[in-house]
Amino acid sequence: MKSVLVTGATGFIGRATVSALISRGYSVHGVSRRPPSTPSCTWHVADLLDPKAAPALVAAANASHLVHLAWTTEHPHYWTSTVNLEWVEASSRLFREFHSAGGRRIVAAGTCAEYAWNDPDVVSGAITECSPRRPQTLYGISKNSTFDLLRGFCRAVGLGFAWGRVFFPYGPGDERPTLIPTIIRNLLSGNPAPCTHGEQERDFIHVRDVGAAFAALLDADVEGAVNIATGTGYSVAQVANEIGGQLGRTDLIHLGALPSRPGDPSRIVADTTRLREKANYRPSVQLRDGLRETIEWWRARSGPSSHEQRN
Amino acid sequence: MKSVLVTGATGFIGRATVSALISRGYSVHGVSRRPPSTPSCTWHVADLLDPKAAPALVAAANASHLVHLAWTTEHPHYWTSTVNLEWVEASSRLFREFHSAGGRRIVAAGTCAEYAWNDPDVVSGAITECSPRRPQTLYGISKNSTFDLLRGFCRAVGLGFAWGRVFFPYGPGDERPTLIPTIIRNLLSGNPAPCTHGEQERDFIHVRDVGAAFAALLDADVEGAVNIATGTGYSVAQVANEIGGQLGRTDLIHLGALPSRPGDPSRIVADTTRLREKANYRPSVQLRDGLRETIEWWRARSGPSSHEQRN
Repeated sequence: MKSVLVTGATGFIGRATVSALISRGYSVHGVSRRPPSTPSCTWHVADLLDPKAAPALVAAANASHLVHLAWTTEHPHYWTSTVNLEWVEASSRLFREFHSAGGRRIVAAGTCAEYAWNDPDVVSGAITECSPRRPQTLYGISKNSTFDLLRGFCRAVGLGFAWGRVFFPYGPGDERPTLIPTIIRNLLSGNPAPCTHGEQERDFIHVRDVGAAFAALLDADVEGAVNIATGTGYSVAQVANEIGGQLGRTDLIHLGALPSRPGDPSRIVADTTRLREKANYRPSVQLRDGLRETIEWWRARSGPSSHEQRN
Repeated sequence: MKSVLVTGATGFIGRATVSALISRGYSVHGVSRRPPSTPSCTWHVADLLDPKAAPALVAAANASHLVHLAWTTEHPHYWTSTVNLEWVEASSRLFREFHSAGGRRIVAAGTCAEYAWNDPDVVSGAITECSPRRPQTLYGISKNSTFDLLRGFCRAVGLGFAWGRVFFPYGPGDERPTLIPTIIRNLLSGNPAPCTHGEQERDFIHVRDVGAAFAALLDADVEGAVNIATGTGYSVAQVANEIGGQLGRTDLIHLGALPSRPGDPSRIVADTTRLREKANYRPSVQLRDGLRETIEWWRARSGPSSHEQRN
């Protein structure tokens, strides 16, 4: 039986990835600082930022495969936090240790923030894995440096390695105060949802597709970076209006109420050829269905209080 | 008094840098795994690959400035060694700790191996700091990732930061089995010095100029990468023949006796505008004089045994 160690396994993307790996027949070893209340797999508690953590963890899991998703994700501080450097260090330690222990293949999480969002060619077309990378944030810089470093390491020692650059994930379980959860929560509470002009296009991908894509990358023999995205862009206005429509409250969507963020790119949409052809994966969740599911998750979660508000 | 912590202070470049910093009036704190027999400055013994080392070291030195030169340098293994990853981690830890302790400015050692040696534009002209970077070795990749990461970190936290990309250093005290020491030692022993075709040009820089350039970078307010080089290329054949001429043994220089190394770039020569204009430093040692000094160092070192061989 194929065995895999998954870091960040309790996270938004981690939970979806663990499910997808179990579906593919992997024996999954999850790791996180805090164990989940109902673990779906063998569980290890470890803090990867502790330099002593990796050797014990890798030995205990004794897995042939590694999916490394753990990173700082506290929104919005992760864009600028110096904890990003600690995660570069932790990732390097983990890769070295996994190789020393005889591991065979690693898939790790990158981000579309590695690309040059200020490059006219990048924002005017579909972003391929060869598009210019000039990250503008400490988060993007740290992920990008980690990619270069760990790709070089894996090539040098003969470890299989793929790096999934995740675009804009959304779905049930995402509690970050990002666009989609914020609009849904406002509308469920009967409050207005102020937005920017809303013309900027993004490649939104449902978290179930993200998890399934990571599992597909692990099973494939593709090497290097692969965009994890749908290849289809929707504008912020389309997303906001879809949520408004599903909740019958388009009147609460206030496009143009917020100023544009300086330097906010007009379009971040992926070319997904490599995901389809090299990892044999094609995302299947339509945005409309994914938003409906996300709305239901928030509605169930808000419980009686939202019920009251809707009366 | 300005105080500076220098890592790798016992190394070939480290010793020259410590001298140059003392000349500029710095109170120098050197650090190395092994203390030198006659320390020229305040000395700290530490192994930076130990995750616990940086906090104690930074606290003990209590310096406002940092010159970070330590790295794995064992020739030729450093090109491919996975210890390069440990030095990325150690550099990141050291920078974080130095910032936490209130440090003000860092200068660290990069390498011309960060550049794209397989790029026609790079090898056909003079390499500027903006030339493409696509390192082909784990050493070059690790240095390049460290540069991107630590530049991002220093910008984010407001630390001054310059990164000196050293080209081809040589001089007294270089015991690595690289081109110049190898030819000198062979000829001093009366042995032939087999070479490749010798047409490849390199930017050789005397170690005293390297040390002085690092000290100049620390005193300047330049940010980012700066080539540490002379701007003048000499072919391997010119260097070999100059050594042969000075020792009266050009007959022992056997150009073409060794096969070319696959992918060996035809020319690696720097544009040094930034070093001159932003760091206000112009290398002064002429190749002929530097080689003479290096030959004398090896002659003094080889002592009676080489004398016998020359009889």
